[in-house]
Amino acid sequence: MKITILGGGGFLGRRVAQKLAESGELGGRRIESMVLFDLMPPAGLEAPFAVTSIGGDIADLPEAAMPPGTDVVFHLAAVVSAAAEADYDLGRRVNLRGTDAVIDACRRLVAGGGAPPRVVFTSSVASFSGGQSVFLEDDTRQVPANSYGTQKAAAEMLLADATRRGFLDAVCLRLPTIIVRPGRPNKAASSFFSAIVREPLLGLETLLPVPDDFAVWVASPRRATEWLIHAAAMDTAPLGLDRSLNPPGMSVKVGDILAALDAVRQGATALVKRVPDPVIAGIVGGWPAGFNVVRAPALGFSRHEPLIDVIRAFVADDLEATRQDRALG
Amino acid sequence: MKITILGGGGFLGRRVAQKLAESGELGGRRIESMVLFDLMPPAGLEAPFAVTSIGGDIADLPEAAMPPGTDVVFHLAAVVSAAAEADYDLGRRVNLRGTDAVIDACRRLVAGGGAPPRVVFTSSVASFSGGQSVFLEDDTRQVPANSYGTQKAAAEMLLADATRRGFLDAVCLRLPTIIVRPGRPNKAASSFFSAIVREPLLGLETLLPVPDDFAVWVASPRRATEWLIHAAAMDTAPLGLDRSLNPPGMSVKVGDILAALDAVRQGATALVKRVPDPVIAGIVGGWPAGFNVVRAPALGFSRHEPLIDVIRAFVADDLEATRQDRALG
Repeated sequence: MKITILGGGGFLGRRVAQKLAESGELGGRRIESMVLFDLMPPAGLEAPFAVTSIGGDIADLPEAAMPPGTDVVFHLAAVVSAAAEADYDLGRRVNLRGTDAVIDACRRLVAGGGAPPRVVFTSSVASFSGGQSVFLEDDTRQVPANSYGTQKAAAEMLLADATRRGFLDAVCLRLPTIIVRPGRPNKAASSFFSAIVREPLLGLETLLPVPDDFAVWVASPRRATEWLIHAAAMDTAPLGLDRSLNPPGMSVKVGDILAALDAVRQGATALVKRVPDPVIAGIVGGWPAGFNVVRAPALGFSRHEPLIDVIRAFVADDLEATRQDRALG
Repeated sequence: MKITILGGGGFLGRRVAQKLAESGELGGRRIESMVLFDLMPPAGLEAPFAVTSIGGDIADLPEAAMPPGTDVVFHLAAVVSAAAEADYDLGRRVNLRGTDAVIDACRRLVAGGGAPPRVVFTSSVASFSGGQSVFLEDDTRQVPANSYGTQKAAAEMLLADATRRGFLDAVCLRLPTIIVRPGRPNKAASSFFSAIVREPLLGLETLLPVPDDFAVWVASPRRATEWLIHAAAMDTAPLGLDRSLNPPGMSVKVGDILAALDAVRQGATALVKRVPDPVIAGIVGGWPAGFNVVRAPALGFSRHEPLIDVIRAFVADDLEATRQDRALG
């Protein structure tokens, strides 16, 4: 089985690659080779199969990124929300033209006699709007309030159509806000949802711009990685025309996150400073508080673990590496 | 007021141009000039304002098609369902890249100091699926079963986002199946809905591929033209983020159409031959039987006239011209 990870140098791409390298298989089939593609060639990977790293522009995808015989493509390459909002052309190029390039690469594989590759695509909760009072259903229409969400929702449609036409076999997962992200605080409006856990665990102060009773739809890096791998191996026949899924994230209150943090490291939340920020609250306040997910669990997507496990997993998987990275930077 | 009609040589573009030429105004403002743009330069128009005809590729839209000061753009240029299904690249180029080109032309106008132009876009009932048993709500999610519908639904999203960003001011109308179209039968699966009226009125036999109790969501050319002009002049503030509307078409049974035909021209339906066609029935059978429209009528879109008036209007507006055209062809 041949696998390509587009966005293979990114946070989730890296996790998926590592998980597959550990198991050496996907859906019971042995992995023969893997291509990691990103803007810059991703770092190598210790794996029981050949790994090729390629750098380039997703909108001008080189053939070597999806060689003949490619069975599974994780299409995680994206310009994220703040960047797509700041630069319309860049967002369109990467998030839309990039998806068209993936579709065209699959068409070439099929035209060459190959089977339609499974394409696992990361869409986002940012493709919905609604606000704090709203729990959305599986079939709620996407009315995005940002260019990133628009481009993701449009890309979902293009991938569903390409599936219907037999170019590929898509599963689109609308990922929740991922907590706890390693690294540094960034300019994403959602950055603080990770920072309020990560920074105190590093012994650093951090700001909380929304009230404690603010609700957010989240998933852990471990859960998101597992979902992506499940999407790559699942039976897609039951999906029919609709190739998009809201995976079973968790609707939590900011206060729940802080309580879980204190349970893992007593007193850590003393470093969280409540400083209301109407701009950030305005952006994240437009996202739905959560989803009533029925379809994805029925299709085998695993339910979310409790918050306390999410924070313990961050401590186990990422805290030390984050500390070292930031000491170096 | 300066107006551009993209697809100005087409069936509906022509009707909109003629209607505006008759009134000389739009929303109470005098029309100064009009550009008609299509693949080939559209035929001229008798009008109380300057009319410029331009031919070209919508995906490579010349600046002259939307000159500085353009207030309203009717974006009706499209590769229709059968053609977009037969040629994926052509559909993507015209229906998606063409819409991006319209967005970019509006961005240039705004960057040059102009107000965001009103863009009236024709989306389609083909962006939905569902089938004979289904009446859809205004906020139903689009799950298209064809590339044309996919490209239209994605274009709606791009136009809504461009509106939010202040590039333009979009109203997207998902037009029902238009009956009665003049001209000849064509390869569109929906062609017979017009042919079962038009052909008998010309004294010609025609085939009916579905049962008499088959339901279809329709609108007349007169009503569609009126909706497009209303969309160009309406107050868009109440639309918020959601710039797409299901206008108040009519859900009718094929038997209702035939009864109305017989009421207008007694015995005409004797020329309709019932020959079931499972391929055509399979395609049109995937479209919803109708919509529960609430939003568009509340925003001033006029309710549909009865079928008998639709057929009388075809006789008054189009029958003689169609007869002459076909005698020449």
